[in-house]
Amino acid sequence: MTSMLNTSPATPASRWQCTRDHSIAIASYLSDEDAAAQSMPDASPIKWHLAHTTWFFETFILGSFEAEFKPHHPAFRMLFNSYYNGIGEQFSRPQRGLLTRPGMKEILAYRHAVDQRMKKLLQHNSSEKLNDLLELGIQHEQQHQELMLTDIKHLLSCNPLHPAMLAPEASDTIRDYVTPSELAMEWHHLDAGVVEIGHQGNDFCFDNETPRHRQFVEAFQIASRLVNNTEYLEFIRAGGYQNPALWLANGWNWVQQQQVRHPIYWHCDERGNWWEFTLHGSQKLSPHQPVAHLSFFEAAAYATWIGARLPTEAEWEYAAQQAHPPSQLFDTCWQWCNSSYTPYPGFQISDGAIGEYNGKFMVDQYVLRGSSGFTPVGHARLTYRNFFPTSARWQRSGIRLVRSV
Amino acid sequence: MTSMLNTSPATPASRWQCTRDHSIAIASYLSDEDAAAQSMPDASPIKWHLAHTTWFFETFILGSFEAEFKPHHPAFRMLFNSYYNGIGEQFSRPQRGLLTRPGMKEILAYRHAVDQRMKKLLQHNSSEKLNDLLELGIQHEQQHQELMLTDIKHLLSCNPLHPAMLAPEASDTIRDYVTPSELAMEWHHLDAGVVEIGHQGNDFCFDNETPRHRQFVEAFQIASRLVNNTEYLEFIRAGGYQNPALWLANGWNWVQQQQVRHPIYWHCDERGNWWEFTLHGSQKLSPHQPVAHLSFFEAAAYATWIGARLPTEAEWEYAAQQAHPPSQLFDTCWQWCNSSYTPYPGFQISDGAIGEYNGKFMVDQYVLRGSSGFTPVGHARLTYRNFFPTSARWQRSGIRLVRSV
Amino acid sequence: MTSMLNTSPATPASRWQCTRDHSIAIASYLSDEDAAAQSMPDASPIKWHLAHTTWFFETFILGSFEAEFKPHHPAFRMLFNSYYNGIGEQFSRPQRGLLTRPGMKEILAYRHAVDQRMKKLLQHNSSEKLNDLLELGIQHEQQHQELMLTDIKHLLSCNPLHPAMLAPEASDTIRDYVTPSELAMEWHHLDAGVVEIGHQGNDFCFDNETPRHRQFVEAFQIASRLVNNTEYLEFIRAGGYQNPALWLANGWNWVQQQQVRHPIYWHCDERGNWWEFTLHGSQKLSPHQPVAHLSFFEAAAYATWIGARLPTEAEWEYAAQQAHPPSQLFDTCWQWCNSSYTPYPGFQISDGAIGEYNGKFMVDQYVLRGSSGFTPVGHARLTYRNFFPTSARWQRSGIRLVRSV
Amino acid sequence: MTSMLNTSPATPASRWQCTRDHSIAIASYLSDEDAAAQSMPDASPIKWHLAHTTWFFETFILGSFEAEFKPHHPAFRMLFNSYYNGIGEQFSRPQRGLLTRPGMKEILAYRHAVDQRMKKLLQHNSSEKLNDLLELGIQHEQQHQELMLTDIKHLLSCNPLHPAMLAPEASDTIRDYVTPSELAMEWHHLDAGVVEIGHQGNDFCFDNETPRHRQFVEAFQIASRLVNNTEYLEFIRAGGYQNPALWLANGWNWVQQQQVRHPIYWHCDERGNWWEFTLHGSQKLSPHQPVAHLSFFEAAAYATWIGARLPTEAEWEYAAQQAHPPSQLFDTCWQWCNSSYTPYPGFQISDGAIGEYNGKFMVDQYVLRGSSGFTPVGHARLTYRNFFPTSARWQRSGIRLVRSV
Repeated sequence: MTSMLNTSPATPASRWQCTRDHSIAIASYLSDEDAAAQSMPDASPIKWHLAHTTWFFETFILGSFEAEFKPHHPAFRMLFNSYYNGIGEQFSRPQRGLLTRPGMKEILAYRHAVDQRMKKLLQHNSSEKLNDLLELGIQHEQQHQELMLTDIKHLLSCNPLHPAMLAPEASDTIRDYVTPSELAMEWHHLDAGVVEIGHQGNDFCFDNETPRHRQFVEAFQIASRLVNNTEYLEFIRAGGYQNPALWLANGWNWVQQQQVRHPIYWHCDERGNWWEFTLHGSQKLSPHQPVAHLSFFEAAAYATWIGARLPTEAEWEYAAQQAHPPSQLFDTCWQWCNSSYTPYPGFQISDGAIGEYNGKFMVDQYVLRGSSGFTPVGHARLTYRNFFPTSARWQRSGIRLVRSV
Repeated sequence: MTSMLNTSPATPASRWQCTRDHSIAIASYLSDEDAAAQSMPDASPIKWHLAHTTWFFETFILGSFEAEFKPHHPAFRMLFNSYYNGIGEQFSRPQRGLLTRPGMKEILAYRHAVDQRMKKLLQHNSSEKLNDLLELGIQHEQQHQELMLTDIKHLLSCNPLHPAMLAPEASDTIRDYVTPSELAMEWHHLDAGVVEIGHQGNDFCFDNETPRHRQFVEAFQIASRLVNNTEYLEFIRAGGYQNPALWLANGWNWVQQQQVRHPIYWHCDERGNWWEFTLHGSQKLSPHQPVAHLSFFEAAAYATWIGARLPTEAEWEYAAQQAHPPSQLFDTCWQWCNSSYTPYPGFQISDGAIGEYNGKFMVDQYVLRGSSGFTPVGHARLTYRNFFPTSARWQRSGIRLVRSV
Repeated sequence: MTSMLNTSPATPASRWQCTRDHSIAIASYLSDEDAAAQSMPDASPIKWHLAHTTWFFETFILGSFEAEFKPHHPAFRMLFNSYYNGIGEQFSRPQRGLLTRPGMKEILAYRHAVDQRMKKLLQHNSSEKLNDLLELGIQHEQQHQELMLTDIKHLLSCNPLHPAMLAPEASDTIRDYVTPSELAMEWHHLDAGVVEIGHQGNDFCFDNETPRHRQFVEAFQIASRLVNNTEYLEFIRAGGYQNPALWLANGWNWVQQQQVRHPIYWHCDERGNWWEFTLHGSQKLSPHQPVAHLSFFEAAAYATWIGARLPTEAEWEYAAQQAHPPSQLFDTCWQWCNSSYTPYPGFQISDGAIGEYNGKFMVDQYVLRGSSGFTPVGHARLTYRNFFPTSARWQRSGIRLVRSV
Repeated sequence: MTSMLNTSPATPASRWQCTRDHSIAIASYLSDEDAAAQSMPDASPIKWHLAHTTWFFETFILGSFEAEFKPHHPAFRMLFNSYYNGIGEQFSRPQRGLLTRPGMKEILAYRHAVDQRMKKLLQHNSSEKLNDLLELGIQHEQQHQELMLTDIKHLLSCNPLHPAMLAPEASDTIRDYVTPSELAMEWHHLDAGVVEIGHQGNDFCFDNETPRHRQFVEAFQIASRLVNNTEYLEFIRAGGYQNPALWLANGWNWVQQQQVRHPIYWHCDERGNWWEFTLHGSQKLSPHQPVAHLSFFEAAAYATWIGARLPTEAEWEYAAQQAHPPSQLFDTCWQWCNSSYTPYPGFQISDGAIGEYNGKFMVDQYVLRGSSGFTPVGHARLTYRNFFPTSARWQRSGIRLVRSV
């Protein structure tokens, strides 16, 4: 569970520097063309991620703390604003792939210029508000680092040449695989009771993890590990994608309309062998890896087929709090919860544009817990709430099973 | 709260007869053309509702209990199957308005024939399973009676002549208005604690209301009545539909794409007077009526604007259980909850096609509680869970406010 | 060639009366529900046709010639205006099926009231302008009589019960079949030269048939009859719908996207027998009937397959002018020409709203010549130019072949 | 009329070399990112054009004439096949912008490798068939050179920074402007008669320009020059885009749905000054330049407004054949004709995949004549038939007026 060990460097400024460097490290595997393309409206070009995370520091920190703030480029305020209505207009999201200018060189120059100004600012300023925004900016960039990996994976998967981003020998920091855990799936029993979930203490968390509050959880059992590829293949072979009785109604519509027959990155060759597209290129399906890149619909259908269900987010967090928690909670796959993404009781939205960070998305999405192999080291938390729509499957999302008792 | 008094006739058979008659009573206000048209994919022709509710009794009761069951018409099994994959194929939902044959006369003959067979069956058979299915069929037809009213209202609203279904003097049984309650909005305080929600006892309920279970609710306040037209008009006049800060992200997209500027059945004439389309035709906006026919997005935006929020379904049910509950819980507007529609802990789906009744819709929808002026007498319950997607606004849905303390 | 014998009653007024009656005769085969439904945006409800043809007389004749003209109903000017921007706003075309009110009874009352006013007007007025508009109104209503038949045929074909509009024994005036001609297909040779096409003389024609003008036609051969069902079936059996080499590029896209595998009203049962849906219900495919209800794309693909091509409209009209013309020119199927619908040299658009009748449609459509079994008696002409988009196939359109020499 | 002077180098091989170089010259103005993006399904990435034109020589020449032909890369046969079903599968056209691999370097290497093989082949082989295919390949690449300019112009126009591809001082070979001609518009009279149009002689032409044949043309007048920006601005200021009476029906739908208010690359600043986006960046609207980048609908609406019409292609070619032809026939804007793109009488499609070059597009498109400032030197001809759908406006298309007499 490396990601839980917060091996943070001593100072916020040095953690900020590490984070900035890591984004560049990811982009270094890509050509300028790779970094400029957008494969679907939900994804963004890598170049855009590099610019937007810079825009975040420029807008929310330099814009507030620099004495004589002047934007790096007047148009960037609009070009690289993702969704902050409080900041102003935004460039049309599905057209981000058309922004061939500014080119990669100019984006890197933008990063460099903002970083220089940030360093200067951090040397001479210090306040709780600044530290809080700095930490938020770091966490924000880490979130985009994961999106960079999921977005580039989706882009490369659209290419019939199945190009690999990473060499066969995996890099140390970016891995599109998981160290498999023990094979037998066991069930941990948890008793009913009032539990507390949500963040507490002074460490960083996103606003959506607060306030810590009580929930009543009925007794249940939780699986000791995630569902793996072998198990999911049995579902496919048993006709799971052809049997409407296993699917939620919207899920069945989705399967029919999109002609879904297997996980998005799987394909079966003419000899009946299954392959999985990864950042290391197309690989033979690895039997003990957790099944990844599933929609909520697929996760729920599998659970129904096997006679189990998906956890609520309270169940997941309660189980993760135990002295002997289930394995594969982190660094594997995000785990779909049967909990829609709603505010915790007493949740307060921050003032100003920064308040748009999380709160306005609390509708029509479902929560995922844990973290994936794409999540940057040090970013995950027990109380972390990730969220996506039910049909999203370009994220590294898998299945943790529970059952009622 | 007439609908809570279960003034049921003495026998199931007579309750069944009353229910069957009431559907015919609704249709009696309409021409054959009115009853055949479909205004949008979410709505169905009235004629189809009359046939489908009959199909339900034919398929699930006659099909199981008649010794030598023969379908009334071999094609009806497919034509009037709504969504039961366990029964077989279904006619394309958005094309229901193209089924000009069978005509209204044949549909009425179908109802008559099935009713005769049902009467004979009910005279000679009796079992718990039969009684349960009979009750489910009655409740099912009552649900469709409400949909008949919301669907015909939507259809007539598309007609620039603004035709009235009902004469100005309202009928006794079908009313598109509410007796307004006291004007001042007050706040009832409720303490934190473990509460029990969900159905208990032997009376009928839908499977989605079970099992009764515990939830922890933090302290909150609930409004003594629903938001009314005057209050909602203030939101419009304050620029509510133009201010993205008040809307959930999906809600703001919806407002922009659909160019929404007011509730679906409202319009403002050239002199600035507001009108509301009703089953009695176009009427001057009634200031003390609860505001009705809102999407979840509109309800949530209003709540944000006024500094409150929407209740969870546990909060709503807990408040409704009190000795002195808030007013306008029933017979007014369905009340949007900020709870997605999910299974209660321990929920079990029934075997067979009947298990498709509720469970498979438990995703991507939000719960509404209470009942509306369109809900048949005797159909509502404290534990009733209605559900629709967040953008739906052709239902009689309004706003109950709560606030955290 | 009954349709070429202009068996017109003695007076314009009596011809007008006959035309009005014939529309009612067509509608008499339908229920109010049949007459109110709209199966697709290109089609209109029968009731709408009845009202629109009445609106035409009311707007263009009563509105000009009645001393104290008052509209029958103020809203009808908009509701039943098809596309005349010069008259004002139009009700949304794809929503015509939602106009359940006014009902059939009111539409018939509208027809009756306008007819009474027309009769009175025709008794007391006479002028060339009035006669011209009266004739245009008659021809206009005849065009809609053909559309009534094609629209209702399309609507009934969407119904899985395959209902018949007409009894098995065909009515005298409405026939969904053709008397087959001689079986052998022969080729008539025509020499190159300057030919004259377009209307001449004082008889009625539409503005798009004028002015008569010269065109140069190279030598060609024209088929003695239309392609029949047997011949078209060979194209299907030879894999015609699977072979991109036979199709125009847009046609191949259309075949792929719409999954077209045979003419719209054909279907093949599980024993391999072919059936055709007609106004008399589903019928065994008749081998010697001209193949009907084809898109331009299908007609062109068949012609390519058989080594021929479709005629230009000049070629068609030139061949039809001969002393011994090809058979099946009229009363069978409209015949697709490889001529886009453009103005003849010197074509002038009339002043006022009536100028919108034809001219504004002269783009992105192709010409069809001849007439079909659905065309009213007396409506067809050698110079008649019908026109539809290349993908339209709900019209009674077939194949006349030619080949270059 | 530089483009009419066929300043071709002495040998086919040297002409081929010049053509190959010119494509590289165009791409040299662009970054790798510019060259990889696709702004809409109708356009293609520059990189794709570079590869596809190479594919054409590889497939149709090397594939036929090399003794031991081996494809450069097995996947390229599919990736860079535009629409030749006879060659096999094609990569999805709207997704060409997702092909970040092969990158620009690999595409240039592909060009280089095929060019080396071509040079060797041309040194040792010679036959009429080879020469014909070589010439077709040259002409094909020239067509794509014009598309490269229109596609990159469209892409850059989507960027709110309005980036310029070319420096303010125009390059010699690529110009996004026209030397304006005399200002007064005069009318040339042409007599009625049988004219001959279509290609004759042994010089290269596309198959769609043959066979030369006779057409009858009625007397008409043709404008001495193209409509210019000043004149088109008067149409805008007179409310041309708001007046349905000026538009063809499909054109009016297009204007309404796309909210078109001016030519695609024009915009009006807040002070009321008009600007035009060009490959040199945003420029003040030049009053005497021919108005460019219009759809057929816009061209036809302008002609109707001014009391003229668009020429047929026979009229255009007949006028261009005169001893004293109108000016601005070439090197300015392609000129919309009111002639749909159909085969000339006696037109024969070539055998094999090469037969897909032109013939299968002869439907649902309109002819444009002349050539534009983007057309490569030496590519234009009197008999050249360009073609696009009526709504296309990213091509350099303008207005030549005619009027009937």
